[in-house]
Amino acid sequence: MNEVVVGIDIGGTFTKFGIVDREGNVYGESSIPTDFTDDVNLYVKDLHKAVMGLFDKVTQKLILKGIGIGAPNGNYYKGTIEFAPNLRWKGIIPLVEIFKNHFHVPVVLTNDANAAAIGEMIFGAAKGMKDFIVITLGTGLGSGIVVNGELVYGHDGFAGELGHTIVKLNGRMCGCGRRGCLETYVSAPGIKRTVFKLLSDTLYKSDLRRYSWDELTPEMISEAANAGDPVAIEAFEYTGEILASKLADAVAHTSPEAIFLLGGLANAGDLIFIPTRKFFEEKLLAIYKNKVKILPSGLADKNAAVMGASALIWKELEK
Amino acid sequence: MNEVVVGIDIGGTFTKFGIVDREGNVYGESSIPTDFTDDVNLYVKDLHKAVMGLFDKVTQKLILKGIGIGAPNGNYYKGTIEFAPNLRWKGIIPLVEIFKNHFHVPVVLTNDANAAAIGEMIFGAAKGMKDFIVITLGTGLGSGIVVNGELVYGHDGFAGELGHTIVKLNGRMCGCGRRGCLETYVSAPGIKRTVFKLLSDTLYKSDLRRYSWDELTPEMISEAANAGDPVAIEAFEYTGEILASKLADAVAHTSPEAIFLLGGLANAGDLIFIPTRKFFEEKLLAIYKNKVKILPSGLADKNAAVMGASALIWKELEK
Repeated sequence: MNEVVVGIDIGGTFTKFGIVDREGNVYGESSIPTDFTDDVNLYVKDLHKAVMGLFDKVTQKLILKGIGIGAPNGNYYKGTIEFAPNLRWKGIIPLVEIFKNHFHVPVVLTNDANAAAIGEMIFGAAKGMKDFIVITLGTGLGSGIVVNGELVYGHDGFAGELGHTIVKLNGRMCGCGRRGCLETYVSAPGIKRTVFKLLSDTLYKSDLRRYSWDELTPEMISEAANAGDPVAIEAFEYTGEILASKLADAVAHTSPEAIFLLGGLANAGDLIFIPTRKFFEEKLLAIYKNKVKILPSGLADKNAAVMGASALIWKELEK
Repeated sequence: MNEVVVGIDIGGTFTKFGIVDREGNVYGESSIPTDFTDDVNLYVKDLHKAVMGLFDKVTQKLILKGIGIGAPNGNYYKGTIEFAPNLRWKGIIPLVEIFKNHFHVPVVLTNDANAAAIGEMIFGAAKGMKDFIVITLGTGLGSGIVVNGELVYGHDGFAGELGHTIVKLNGRMCGCGRRGCLETYVSAPGIKRTVFKLLSDTLYKSDLRRYSWDELTPEMISEAANAGDPVAIEAFEYTGEILASKLADAVAHTSPEAIFLLGGLANAGDLIFIPTRKFFEEKLLAIYKNKVKILPSGLADKNAAVMGASALIWKELEK
């Protein structure tokens, strides 16, 4: 009989989940659509069915110990999703309460980047580290901050929104309604905005001049940079410099041992890590120099979000 | 027999100390010069003599339980002062070790702003709060961050240097060797720099045009603002806006319940609190709005630095 948990990653389009034991072994993974209904009760009912279906397919005998959930704007303290812009369920959703109508085990919820940080600590490259930060680079920029071995939730459960620290007064418009947020520069859409700015500011010859806004993808920017395109290369440099500057600020807050980058933009590898590390060391306050590592996630080969949600509930069960 | 500790605040010019019990009662206070010698051993010897002299003057029977020290660049983990620009002792000073040659009780050291934060938690206005930030506004801008009831020391013991987060790329020159640091805008010298910038940028009639750089003090700027001087008023607005912007960023890191301002510039009261609070609410990410209080220190009538150093050791003794 193996003790397992279910880790659930709720995204705007898909909900992915997996059955994971304490050592990080994955017994099964699957997904359902997230956006098929406005009715969150119906969604959880369907998800319950799908999770039970996945258990039926596993031949080993398993005991379900708990459920961990990572979701946008997930509140750890209240078990709620609050005003998540990319989900169809509006307002404040008491998600953990709804889960408990279907699953009779402990259920814990936090936001996706916080779950990724706990995943890194329990299953990934932050094992044994007490102070570190995880930055998720996707359609936005998420962050999870760990201090003294514990995730920082803050007074209201919403700590760790580095994507919404300000790079520039009156800078780029952000989906949050303000201007100049870090994620408008450093994220998949952020680097695309930078490419368009460079196409406008420079006269560099660039293959990227052939694509419309709607056509251009982050992968095309990576490919162009690898092929030596000057606009694409400068876009990565600029992205790395802005990220480095805000990571240097983050060090002045919690002084971590390492900062992990994961998600789409981090998969560009050296294109983003090299400029980020170079500018980071330049920008750090003297007492912090040569102390803080910028590293790729140790979960890059797995579903980091599902592993994170699993780690979240394992950590909770050990309290 | 009353159990007491000694709280010591090491400044560039003076070292202040007091005998304090667990309830925050002060049995005596005194000071010695800090900068009378390059020899830190001699300094500690003199300080020991002065502390013993203070105990001799107290009529109650006291038992010394420990010593807490707040000092610039004080490292909690190592008990060292490292490369403090305003002290005559250069390099890395093993201060706690030297203290232990003279005092045979537990000795703990941290930086002055961290000590102030613990003072606020144990004796001041943060009693019962788990998540808050203390900002000290003096010749520089110091900060102590508390998460989940514990001060954040970080991996290297130097967490909480918000004064050296960056306001503006290529901004004002900072004593740290970089440019654009928060403390070049928000501190006693920072507001003076802002006044000189406004005297240069505007044609406002202002009494402050009568003073040289060397003559102008922060108190004169406060007095002028209270008398309606437009340059002085705008200087406080500008200072409050920049502080607010970086405090909004700090909320996105650790999501505190309150932020306390103390020290010289905070003593200007409404002149600094009103613009800071106004711009802070404007700049906060929506999920944080109307949740985070900006408050004066609860130790403003006492020597907050000495109380903080005392609280530091009391907290340590209770571990």
